[in-house]
Amino acid sequence: MLLNETAEKIRSMEIRGAGRIARSAVGALRDHAAGLETSDTASFLRSMKEAADLLVATRPTAVSLPNAVQTVMRSLEGAKSVDEAKAAIKAAADSFILSSKHAVEWIGEIGARHISDGDVILTHCNSEAALACILTAHREGKAIEVFATEVRPRNQGLLTIRALNDAGIQTNFIVDSAVRSYINDVDLVITGADAITVNGAVVNKIGTAQIALTAHEARTPMVVAAETYKFAPRTILGERIAIEERETGEVLDRRIAAGLPHVRVRNPAFDVTPARYVDLIVTEIGAIPPAMAYMIIRDHLGWGIGEFHKAFEIDERIQE
Amino acid sequence: MLLNETAEKIRSMEIRGAGRIARSAVGALRDHAAGLETSDTASFLRSMKEAADLLVATRPTAVSLPNAVQTVMRSLEGAKSVDEAKAAIKAAADSFILSSKHAVEWIGEIGARHISDGDVILTHCNSEAALACILTAHREGKAIEVFATEVRPRNQGLLTIRALNDAGIQTNFIVDSAVRSYINDVDLVITGADAITVNGAVVNKIGTAQIALTAHEARTPMVVAAETYKFAPRTILGERIAIEERETGEVLDRRIAAGLPHVRVRNPAFDVTPARYVDLIVTEIGAIPPAMAYMIIRDHLGWGIGEFHKAFEIDERIQE
Amino acid sequence: MLLNETAEKIRSMEIRGAGRIARSAVGALRDHAAGLETSDTASFLRSMKEAADLLVATRPTAVSLPNAVQTVMRSLEGAKSVDEAKAAIKAAADSFILSSKHAVEWIGEIGARHISDGDVILTHCNSEAALACILTAHREGKAIEVFATEVRPRNQGLLTIRALNDAGIQTNFIVDSAVRSYINDVDLVITGADAITVNGAVVNKIGTAQIALTAHEARTPMVVAAETYKFAPRTILGERIAIEERETGEVLDRRIAAGLPHVRVRNPAFDVTPARYVDLIVTEIGAIPPAMAYMIIRDHLGWGIGEFHKAFEIDERIQE
Amino acid sequence: MLLNETAEKIRSMEIRGAGRIARSAVGALRDHAAGLETSDTASFLRSMKEAADLLVATRPTAVSLPNAVQTVMRSLEGAKSVDEAKAAIKAAADSFILSSKHAVEWIGEIGARHISDGDVILTHCNSEAALACILTAHREGKAIEVFATEVRPRNQGLLTIRALNDAGIQTNFIVDSAVRSYINDVDLVITGADAITVNGAVVNKIGTAQIALTAHEARTPMVVAAETYKFAPRTILGERIAIEERETGEVLDRRIAAGLPHVRVRNPAFDVTPARYVDLIVTEIGAIPPAMAYMIIRDHLGWGIGEFHKAFEIDERIQE
Amino acid sequence: MLLNETAEKIRSMEIRGAGRIARSAVGALRDHAAGLETSDTASFLRSMKEAADLLVATRPTAVSLPNAVQTVMRSLEGAKSVDEAKAAIKAAADSFILSSKHAVEWIGEIGARHISDGDVILTHCNSEAALACILTAHREGKAIEVFATEVRPRNQGLLTIRALNDAGIQTNFIVDSAVRSYINDVDLVITGADAITVNGAVVNKIGTAQIALTAHEARTPMVVAAETYKFAPRTILGERIAIEERETGEVLDRRIAAGLPHVRVRNPAFDVTPARYVDLIVTEIGAIPPAMAYMIIRDHLGWGIGEFHKAFEIDERIQE
Amino acid sequence: MLLNETAEKIRSMEIRGAGRIARSAVGALRDHAAGLETSDTASFLRSMKEAADLLVATRPTAVSLPNAVQTVMRSLEGAKSVDEAKAAIKAAADSFILSSKHAVEWIGEIGARHISDGDVILTHCNSEAALACILTAHREGKAIEVFATEVRPRNQGLLTIRALNDAGIQTNFIVDSAVRSYINDVDLVITGADAITVNGAVVNKIGTAQIALTAHEARTPMVVAAETYKFAPRTILGERIAIEERETGEVLDRRIAAGLPHVRVRNPAFDVTPARYVDLIVTEIGAIPPAMAYMIIRDHLGWGIGEFHKAFEIDERIQE
Repeated sequence: MLLNETAEKIRSMEIRGAGRIARSAVGALRDHAAGLETSDTASFLRSMKEAADLLVATRPTAVSLPNAVQTVMRSLEGAKSVDEAKAAIKAAADSFILSSKHAVEWIGEIGARHISDGDVILTHCNSEAALACILTAHREGKAIEVFATEVRPRNQGLLTIRALNDAGIQTNFIVDSAVRSYINDVDLVITGADAITVNGAVVNKIGTAQIALTAHEARTPMVVAAETYKFAPRTILGERIAIEERETGEVLDRRIAAGLPHVRVRNPAFDVTPARYVDLIVTEIGAIPPAMAYMIIRDHLGWGIGEFHKAFEIDERIQE
Repeated sequence: MLLNETAEKIRSMEIRGAGRIARSAVGALRDHAAGLETSDTASFLRSMKEAADLLVATRPTAVSLPNAVQTVMRSLEGAKSVDEAKAAIKAAADSFILSSKHAVEWIGEIGARHISDGDVILTHCNSEAALACILTAHREGKAIEVFATEVRPRNQGLLTIRALNDAGIQTNFIVDSAVRSYINDVDLVITGADAITVNGAVVNKIGTAQIALTAHEARTPMVVAAETYKFAPRTILGERIAIEERETGEVLDRRIAAGLPHVRVRNPAFDVTPARYVDLIVTEIGAIPPAMAYMIIRDHLGWGIGEFHKAFEIDERIQE
Repeated sequence: MLLNETAEKIRSMEIRGAGRIARSAVGALRDHAAGLETSDTASFLRSMKEAADLLVATRPTAVSLPNAVQTVMRSLEGAKSVDEAKAAIKAAADSFILSSKHAVEWIGEIGARHISDGDVILTHCNSEAALACILTAHREGKAIEVFATEVRPRNQGLLTIRALNDAGIQTNFIVDSAVRSYINDVDLVITGADAITVNGAVVNKIGTAQIALTAHEARTPMVVAAETYKFAPRTILGERIAIEERETGEVLDRRIAAGLPHVRVRNPAFDVTPARYVDLIVTEIGAIPPAMAYMIIRDHLGWGIGEFHKAFEIDERIQE
Repeated sequence: MLLNETAEKIRSMEIRGAGRIARSAVGALRDHAAGLETSDTASFLRSMKEAADLLVATRPTAVSLPNAVQTVMRSLEGAKSVDEAKAAIKAAADSFILSSKHAVEWIGEIGARHISDGDVILTHCNSEAALACILTAHREGKAIEVFATEVRPRNQGLLTIRALNDAGIQTNFIVDSAVRSYINDVDLVITGADAITVNGAVVNKIGTAQIALTAHEARTPMVVAAETYKFAPRTILGERIAIEERETGEVLDRRIAAGLPHVRVRNPAFDVTPARYVDLIVTEIGAIPPAMAYMIIRDHLGWGIGEFHKAFEIDERIQE
Repeated sequence: MLLNETAEKIRSMEIRGAGRIARSAVGALRDHAAGLETSDTASFLRSMKEAADLLVATRPTAVSLPNAVQTVMRSLEGAKSVDEAKAAIKAAADSFILSSKHAVEWIGEIGARHISDGDVILTHCNSEAALACILTAHREGKAIEVFATEVRPRNQGLLTIRALNDAGIQTNFIVDSAVRSYINDVDLVITGADAITVNGAVVNKIGTAQIALTAHEARTPMVVAAETYKFAPRTILGERIAIEERETGEVLDRRIAAGLPHVRVRNPAFDVTPARYVDLIVTEIGAIPPAMAYMIIRDHLGWGIGEFHKAFEIDERIQE
Repeated sequence: MLLNETAEKIRSMEIRGAGRIARSAVGALRDHAAGLETSDTASFLRSMKEAADLLVATRPTAVSLPNAVQTVMRSLEGAKSVDEAKAAIKAAADSFILSSKHAVEWIGEIGARHISDGDVILTHCNSEAALACILTAHREGKAIEVFATEVRPRNQGLLTIRALNDAGIQTNFIVDSAVRSYINDVDLVITGADAITVNGAVVNKIGTAQIALTAHEARTPMVVAAETYKFAPRTILGERIAIEERETGEVLDRRIAAGLPHVRVRNPAFDVTPARYVDLIVTEIGAIPPAMAYMIIRDHLGWGIGEFHKAFEIDERIQE
């Protein structure tokens, strides 16, 4: 697929989902590199840099996209010829795509080890990674029971209970407000994440933070299942994750709202769970405490100190 | 209204609502007393006792009903003649009815004093007493803003935002899960109560306990507005408030549920907020800390130690 | 039994146990009153006062003894003749003895209502009142399971597990240190009390406070079962409950200790659980929150403000 | 002293201090009653009511003043003649003055029992009642050491360390910010109170709440020493204690401030310590937990439910 | 010593203790390498891999054993000849053995710096590393006092107080339940560890978690002294540390137990202290916060991301 | 500047301030290297080592000084000739000086991203780095309001409010004790740091810890702004940051103190805020959670495991 085509599909949301976006961008970069016909290293690198910038610009607030692009681009460091560079990009891209495809599966294997026979698990929203942990434990023969929440206003809990029902797992379905009534019967909370910041805070579907607080009050462990590309590098530079406010009709029928001029509907899609309420984050490369988010960003995703210096354009300043 | 008629209407739920049930029962007892034609004190008392038992039996788990009946019946203590007794009952019944009718109004006046100009208030469910505090503060000219929750699964939040909108109060409407996202902007939480136990725990609409915990985490005061007849005397004897599980169709469409054999819907109507998360309970006879619930039950509602001895039938045991 | 004889038996610990001491003293006072042959009220009261002082002095740090004596002595207030006084004393004494004898039974009935079918209960030490709650719930047909601790250094847990075993209740026996490992599986902690202070702190067998803290951390309710004569009136005057240090041989064999000159064995018999870790105190006259301890002392045990003024000898001071 | 004269001296702050104001008002009422020459009970009561209202109006936000006046006025209840009423007032007034004069001494005796030999005590501001506890313990021969804070902006700590120094007590003097650095070496915090609300919150010199929080974090007990007339009855009706903002020159030299147009000095005199950080309140009639504030107001100060009904003018409403 | 001989001695527990097992295995690998006579690198590596697997399999749940073996084996990376490989193994093995032998000593030096003159220290169980900190501080001339617990059911506290007594350190001996009674007098808690997980949780002798909670409640710092080989790498892959249940006779005499058919003795050897109750972990390579456990495992013990990829056999999957 | 001259100026405090000391030392080392005329690598290194030791010894408890020196000295590793070594030192020194000069500016840019339009910020003391965050946010056009504390005993708050006033930022000035009264109106606390330990504890101006605790109680985020050279490497070896006690005249006028022989003034300059009350540390190389302090010390400042082995002189021990 041509680079511009991929960029356009990401921009138009034809390509959706943190994982698919990431893999498409990586594949486009790899193919773009393969197709470049120059043998001049400098011009090759310049062209790749332009391609990377083009892709990242399609969705400026996405987290997985810059992580994916960075993974490929840093493979260029030290390449001494265009051929070496192309090979390095191909290797990095293939490895990223493989790892991304398998990530949920590996998270499921790691997370399932935290589930014991007889456990009662609570989950919120409809996270592929969190479900992988539960379904893997079930497949391993552990007798488990699940509490799943409704997840207002879009009711993603329905998708979750369908998946659990289809697997034959005994499931309880409750409104979001009822978590504290049952949490003393729960052995483990597992949720997904939309993004994880440098200090281990977890951005996830609205309601997650209240559940984490409730679990903490009852000494029930809280595990977050998330692919490494969910870790948000720019938070190291102080950038805060913007919490999208979705359209209000999801919460209150627009016709009713029209008759209530003094009422304003607020519909934040996500909330932020502080690191101190998260016991463990399960990624495809292992389970870590939330305080280790910085290491994932630096060592695994490759956003080292050099990257930050570039961000501040230190070299130019030195010239002054 | 005849005693049996009132009893039947309470039983059939034609007469509903904690306040209306209480006042009807008290009126029926008063009228029953007035109509009794005996001049023999003992037989008068016996007949009144039967009438009281009949009424209490119509709704065995109600809280306001036995409180109301007890208020009238203890006025009989010390009566030396049927005429004295009738007069005492009439006075006690009229006073109870007056106080009950004005209770919400008085709660509103007391509660409004805890609201300052410029405050942001969060409320949950649709409590007449909690709304009275907010509306009174608004009428007093204080500029206030309210956050109101949706209150799944029956969406009583809609009633609340209508009332607030009609009063011209600036209101924000959010899903139940979003409370923690806004609580740092909230100055005061006010909710109602369905029942209050002897140790100050507040039984209220599902979700209240999570909100109270969230408010506590953010050092936001939590005020409960409740008529004194909501205090549950039998909890002194260890009786626990049974949490009603309502029908599951409220949470999940029965047709969908039919296709999900492994899924069980749980729909508790209430939850229990521990006293340590409640800063103040505003009643029609004043604001008290939750630990004072016992005093309300004993001194105001009249469930003294004597009543408990009777409950254990101590006299009979002494004969053994 | 003669007054002096009873006093001697209490002093020599022939009569032991908070309940038995209290009942013996009350009976001795009653019999002493009956035997007094004066018809002069003043001299009768003087003699009773002497008798009361004699009894209280036998065990100056006991809690149940002054409570029992006070219960009888305050029945004298308002007596206009020796005959009236004797009758009042007899009535008060008989009522106290009856109530005391039945107290554990009634506590069992009230406490059992806090135990649900299927509950797992943890208890510490060997409290008759706490066991009454558990055994009553078991007799009512509730399926329950108990965790009982060893209770170093005197191993009273052995008595507890024998009692539970004999009742056929499924019991787990653990060392005191293992409570936190199992508390998430426990629905309710029930212990007894040796004394309860005016601010609701519970003095009980060493280890109770750690268990209460551990239960609080896990949001597991903590119930204390205690007869009302365990409430310590002198704590209102600021008196602190002295924690007895028992002999060190209980903890470390004296021969081993002799070889360890730098080692000092500390063996406190009790510790103090703050009120904030206690959810409910179950007494024979009802369940109360710990903050209500003052009411029990004042209204039920009769240590009113007058008593405190006497303690400060205010009248004399006025003469100055 | 004539009634008007006393009223004027209170208004003009010639008579100052919670205790002195209270005793002066009570004495003025007593003398006013003695001087009234009517023998008509109704007109006597009317005149007394006017006198009471006059006094209370001199300092509308004072707490001790209405408490003192109410103590005297409720002695009128049930008086059947002017002579009876005068006698009742005299007795109540004399008793109040005696108790008020001795209150600090009795608080000292009770509070000192909470201080053990070898204790390190921290105090804040310059409370006569708190100092009484410390000085009494010292006089009883207990070896104690004190940490006293500076108490910005008016540096009342200087008065405290002078008093402690003069008594020969080893004292450490620290800035208000240094409390957390030493709290682990402190066995007990004792402060006074300016007012105590119905839910046990303690209004005291700015900084007290931070100290209480810091003590709570370190499991160090916090004791408040306060005369009963500090309990604020109107808080039962929802009235909030207004926190006075004192003049800004205390914090920042006015000449400096004049040069800083964007800077606003805030100088609240008091703050509010929530009941959950207070272990015990020591009053002249005994030590109580903060949750018992309501009982002090109702039973000791005499602000019963009747008073509140009057406040809402229920009788008039009944006529409607 | 021959490889098989060492393996057998580890399996039969003739070689015991985390440190001795680790050093024996490392020595056996080194000697095995030295004795291999092949000059073919591939076959050399294969043989070493077999040797490593043999050793690790002797105690599948040990933590120090795989850490030790991994330390040696990763020295093979990049070796280009058998000679180079042998040299690398020898260097790595000698360095490991040296470091392991000195680890306790170095921990003692680092830990002692956290002990100030005059400190009171509490320790639990009988940890060589924790004792090293205390004894070093004592040797440095600091005046210290220790509280040591009994450590039921095996009473290892006796060993601890003997060691402290022999060093001439003033020691208090208490039952495990009495920690909360003395913790306010304690300046520092120091314990050892049996294992430390990737999220900084400390697995140690039963009772440690309750002590850590109690210390946290009183703001008393909790330090864990542990050699780096106690950090459990497989917890990164989600593996949970299995808590061994020891034989029940340790807790309850088997003859007594035989008479109690409804009683089940539970005897977990360890418990898990969450990272949030641990202030610092002192290792032989420095003091770290518990959240750094991952870094110790990855950077010091050498369990990098590559190891985890191997664990999931990614390469093979790529072939599919 | 000659090496000895610089050393002397640091010793005599002619050169002051963490940043200036660090840059002077680095410059002196660079110039010293440039001036060395030997071509023998060993003797060059020896001379540099002596120079480094000389500089570090001038202020043995400083934190920035050894960090700066270490940054330069580790650039020598691997140098194969004196010329290479001189070049490496020059590059490292210039980079350090540049980074140090820009550090506050970059911290301001990162920290400002955590400030939203409309935020209320509280700061304590007079930290250049914390002010940079606030001033940058203001320059970016965000409408902000600040609460600044007085900062007894040296009143550095005056400097802070001058700087804020001059920038035209709306500022509130309060005594240190008043923080809890306003914290619920504050969105963010930002302070500086004097040193940061290996476990993320923040050593800063006395009062910071109480503010952090107060912010934590109210769920208000606490951000610390600090240059990386504030991280204290020796804390990894267990060294505790000594808290300087400044001269007592700052707190109490010496003439007053002279008259108070039982009073001892305590004047600690700093306190220690535990990592659990700090949400984020903003450095010039990015924002990190406090648990990452170890990484800054190891990876950025270059105090690796090798440095610690040297500290314990492992090589020499191996010879034994």
